Amino acid sequence: MVINVARPELLVRQLIDRDTWTYTYLLVDPRTQQGVLIDPVREQLERDLSLIKELGVELHYVLETHVHADHITSAGMIRQQTGAKIVYSKAAEVQAIDIAINDGDKLEIGAYSITALMTPGHTNGCVSYVVDGMLFCGDALLIHGCGRTDFQQGSAEVLYDSITQKLFSLPDETLVYPGHDYAGRTSSTIAEEKRWNRRLGGGKSKAEFVKIMHNLNLDLPKKINEAVPANMETGISFDPKRYLHEEFSMVDLHQAWQALGQDELVIDTRSAAEFSGGHVPRAKNIPFGDEGNYVAELKNYKRVYLYCRSGRRAQTVFTNLSIMGLNNLVCVGHSGMPEWISADYPVE
Amino acid sequence: MVINVARPELLVRQLIDRDTWTYTYLLVDPRTQQGVLIDPVREQLERDLSLIKELGVELHYVLETHVHADHITSAGMIRQQTGAKIVYSKAAEVQAIDIAINDGDKLEIGAYSITALMTPGHTNGCVSYVVDGMLFCGDALLIHGCGRTDFQQGSAEVLYDSITQKLFSLPDETLVYPGHDYAGRTSSTIAEEKRWNRRLGGGKSKAEFVKIMHNLNLDLPKKINEAVPANMETGISFDPKRYLHEEFSMVDLHQAWQALGQDELVIDTRSAAEFSGGHVPRAKNIPFGDEGNYVAELKNYKRVYLYCRSGRRAQTVFTNLSIMGLNNLVCVGHSGMPEWISADYPVE
Repeated sequence: MVINVARPELLVRQLIDRDTWTYTYLLVDPRTQQGVLIDPVREQLERDLSLIKELGVELHYVLETHVHADHITSAGMIRQQTGAKIVYSKAAEVQAIDIAINDGDKLEIGAYSITALMTPGHTNGCVSYVVDGMLFCGDALLIHGCGRTDFQQGSAEVLYDSITQKLFSLPDETLVYPGHDYAGRTSSTIAEEKRWNRRLGGGKSKAEFVKIMHNLNLDLPKKINEAVPANMETGISFDPKRYLHEEFSMVDLHQAWQALGQDELVIDTRSAAEFSGGHVPRAKNIPFGDEGNYVAELKNYKRVYLYCRSGRRAQTVFTNLSIMGLNNLVCVGHSGMPEWISADYPVE
Repeated sequence: MVINVARPELLVRQLIDRDTWTYTYLLVDPRTQQGVLIDPVREQLERDLSLIKELGVELHYVLETHVHADHITSAGMIRQQTGAKIVYSKAAEVQAIDIAINDGDKLEIGAYSITALMTPGHTNGCVSYVVDGMLFCGDALLIHGCGRTDFQQGSAEVLYDSITQKLFSLPDETLVYPGHDYAGRTSSTIAEEKRWNRRLGGGKSKAEFVKIMHNLNLDLPKKINEAVPANMETGISFDPKRYLHEEFSMVDLHQAWQALGQDELVIDTRSAAEFSGGHVPRAKNIPFGDEGNYVAELKNYKRVYLYCRSGRRAQTVFTNLSIMGLNNLVCVGHSGMPEWISADYPVE
């Protein structure tokens, strides 16, 4: 076949999570050093932040291609560390994010415009991003394959249309950067996928494709029961800004604490050493960074109050747990244990 | 830091072996479709040949950066399938190859010239390849690290000079494509490594580097006892061409067979079905493709004779086993079982 491949000007760094074989992408405009991070993985937070720092990237957006079932995103933590805005498709219905994007919407980094294409079918909230001759398609289109369609509102019929009508309409030389590749390939092109994709290439009909997809008989992803709730806001109406920052003080916490019910919990997000030096009586210590391990447990409470020393760590934990689906959080955002002590409230 | 990154015109496909985290690279001149494959892995033979076929690549060379200790190369099999020439550094002393390359030597693919740079230190035979703004450095320089120097004639002092004098002299924007990255990164640049490499960056002295390298205390690679002998000719003087092709016939095999010693073996490389339909008495059946599993066993013989039907499969097995270090092979290259039967020799 004719080899004709786009040559992007954007810096592209493809990064791999070795456990789930998820591909994360850092894109940077080399002139302005503005960048975006696509589909970052929680376990790779430190690596990804190091790279951003080393290259001097001003991170504008964290783009999620969909609500992942195989890993938990680090989007909330990246936002906390860099100020980047979290972007999901509107259809994904993820809350506590910054931008809910629609088909054809554009995001700018430096001189480049990233176009969002809604490509549902693997999940109903899948979005692909096109910029500078490259396609970042998450699990919609994979190299010589595609995402499964048997959970998270997946649909083989819908996926066929997304790929053949939207993605295969892109120029042949477009570089395809998928969300995974279990054979160790890292990129492809639209021309190659139109010709060689095992499920959709060579002009396969929708009926053929649907038959293939219905006969895959795959096991569920190992982490689905952890990852989907963690990545997805549960959808119950809750305005995270309502209790965050200015509005809830240690004085308010004291009031709530005096009437604390069995279905309510106070959490101290400081270190174990700080906690043992004096804390709000009956508070539970979940040090900043460990919160991901307590999502299931904290869901059982009607209300969970968070505090630390200055409010900073509590805010971060609040953000991370909100991204992971908790909607019962109340955070002391700009004060903490010193104020509690100054007010002469009881200390344990 | 300033982000200034080369934009290669060559098509680059980075491929990963998930077991050993080895990076293989396919480079193709998009105009002539001539290409090279760097450091292919035996277990990925099928994937790599598929890609070469799909893209319509005329493969000219298989470039090895060094004698690998963690995986077995597919170079011999790729050569057999594509006609590509196998390239190692002269210093690697690998036999049964096509080109033993020296410092500064060049290889052409299409309009591009690949320059070999000897970069010993990880092993004494390490070579890096530079082309079109890209560096393929095997395990000499890794992203923020480097290859170990504690076996295969490694030397921290030598590696320091290779990296700081040769590789760090390349333009800052040169893309660094390493042989591995255990953190899931896929590329870097010379500028980044000069600045951020944990072992060599930021102007570390040779003494500092040597101290770091001497205190790594790493375990040996799991496959080293299998992989190094398999990748390396053992060095005992043996001219594979001596017995190959024209010079050894089924008549010669019959003569050898009549005097076959306890330390000699005849191998039939046809399929099990062909074998059971009639074979040279006492021959062992190792069907073409399975030979890699018998390297250790076959080493115990003084001489191993190979035949098949036409000589083609026996030649391929001969080539592959030679690459894997066997030097005791004698191959019937242009005839086979039909000639044995026609001559009315005994059949079992």
